[in-house]
Amino acid sequence: MERRVYFVTTNEGKLREARIVLGKYGFRVEAVNARKLELQSESLEEVVSFAAAQLVGKVAEPFVVEDAGLFIQSLGGFPGPYSSYVYRTLGVKGVLKLLEGVEDRRAKFVSVSALCFQGETRTFKGEIEGTISFEARGSAGFGFDPIFIPDGYDLTFAEMALQLKCEISHRARSLSALANHLLRVRDFSSNFKPGYV
Amino acid sequence: MERRVYFVTTNEGKLREARIVLGKYGFRVEAVNARKLELQSESLEEVVSFAAAQLVGKVAEPFVVEDAGLFIQSLGGFPGPYSSYVYRTLGVKGVLKLLEGVEDRRAKFVSVSALCFQGETRTFKGEIEGTISFEARGSAGFGFDPIFIPDGYDLTFAEMALQLKCEISHRARSLSALANHLLRVRDFSSNFKPGYV
Repeated sequence: MERRVYFVTTNEGKLREARIVLGKYGFRVEAVNARKLELQSESLEEVVSFAAAQLVGKVAEPFVVEDAGLFIQSLGGFPGPYSSYVYRTLGVKGVLKLLEGVEDRRAKFVSVSALCFQGETRTFKGEIEGTISFEARGSAGFGFDPIFIPDGYDLTFAEMALQLKCEISHRARSLSALANHLLRVRDFSSNFKPGYV
Repeated sequence: MERRVYFVTTNEGKLREARIVLGKYGFRVEAVNARKLELQSESLEEVVSFAAAQLVGKVAEPFVVEDAGLFIQSLGGFPGPYSSYVYRTLGVKGVLKLLEGVEDRRAKFVSVSALCFQGETRTFKGEIEGTISFEARGSAGFGFDPIFIPDGYDLTFAEMALQLKCEISHRARSLSALANHLLRVRDFSSNFKPGYV
C-alpha cells in the first residue's frame, strides 16, 4: 500500500531531506508548490501553524508545512525564524563576521513541522545543538549548513553525507515525530485516500 | 470639528511621531492596541496591506497601520522589513559590526502607511536616503535612529529634535501623503462619524 504525504515547499534541499526521512517510514513525498503565508514571529510553531491553517482545504491531505531556523545564543537567537532572509542578504559571511572575536559559539537548529490531516493540525519540533564554525566548510545541504557543527561531530552539516544529516538533524527529528504520529493515527492505513481539492 | 484617526501600534515612539505629523493636518490620533499580523515579506506594502486587511471590521475607522525598515545597500537591503527584530537581537552594535571596513554606507529608511476607511485600503510610501554613521550618536527617536544620518544633515535622527525628524523622515512622508488623501476624500468632513465595532 502506498502512503502519500504532501510537502509544501519550494526548497529543493528540504524536499530531498523530507523524502529521505519520511521514506524510512514508508511514505512517498509529493511536493506541493503552494505559497505559504509566513508570519513575522519568533515562534516557529506560530509560523507553521498559521501557514498550515491558510492552506487547509486548498492542498491535498495529509500535508506538511515545515519551517526551521538557526538560533545563535550570543546573538540573542538571531537569525532564528528569519534565517532564509538573512542567508539571502548577509549570507554565511555576514554571520561569521557578527561572531568575529566572540567566544560563545553555541547555536541550535530548530525545525517545526505541522501536519494537517482530517481536520486536525499538529506540530512537531526537532532540535539539534551545536556550535558555529570559524569558517564555512563543505558544500552539501543548504543555507547555514556550512557553518553548523552538531555536538559530537567534527563535521559541519555541509561536510556530512546527506544520509547522515538526515539521521540526526532538527528536520529529521521533527519529521520523524510527525511520521510516527501519522502511522499511529487510527484507521490511517485502511481509510486513507488521497483527497484532491 | 474634530478629525480623529486610529493608529494601530504598540510602539510609543511611532505614536509620538504620528501625533506630531498628523496633528499638523488637524487630526487627533488615538492609539489602538490591536495585534498586527505581520507577514514575512520583503515588501513593506505587502506587510501593511495584509495586516490592515485582518483588522478591517475589528478596529474603528479611519485607521492606520504603518511599518518601516532600514535598508542598507551593501547588505542587500538588510535588515529591511525585519528591522525591529534585528534591533532587538543584534542591536545597533551588530549592524555597525557588519559594516566594519565597508566603504559603501548608503542606506534608506522606508515607511509604508496603510489607511483603511469606508471599505477601501490605500498605502502611502515615504523614503529618506542617507548613510550609516561609524558610531551611535544621540538618544532621541528609537530603533536605528542613532546610526542613520539623512542626506543634507550632519546629525543622526537620534541627535535631531523630534520636530525636525518629523518634518523630514520616511514616516513623516508616508503619513503626510496619507493625511492629504484623507482630507481630500469626498464628504469626509461632513459624513464622517467614528465607527466603533
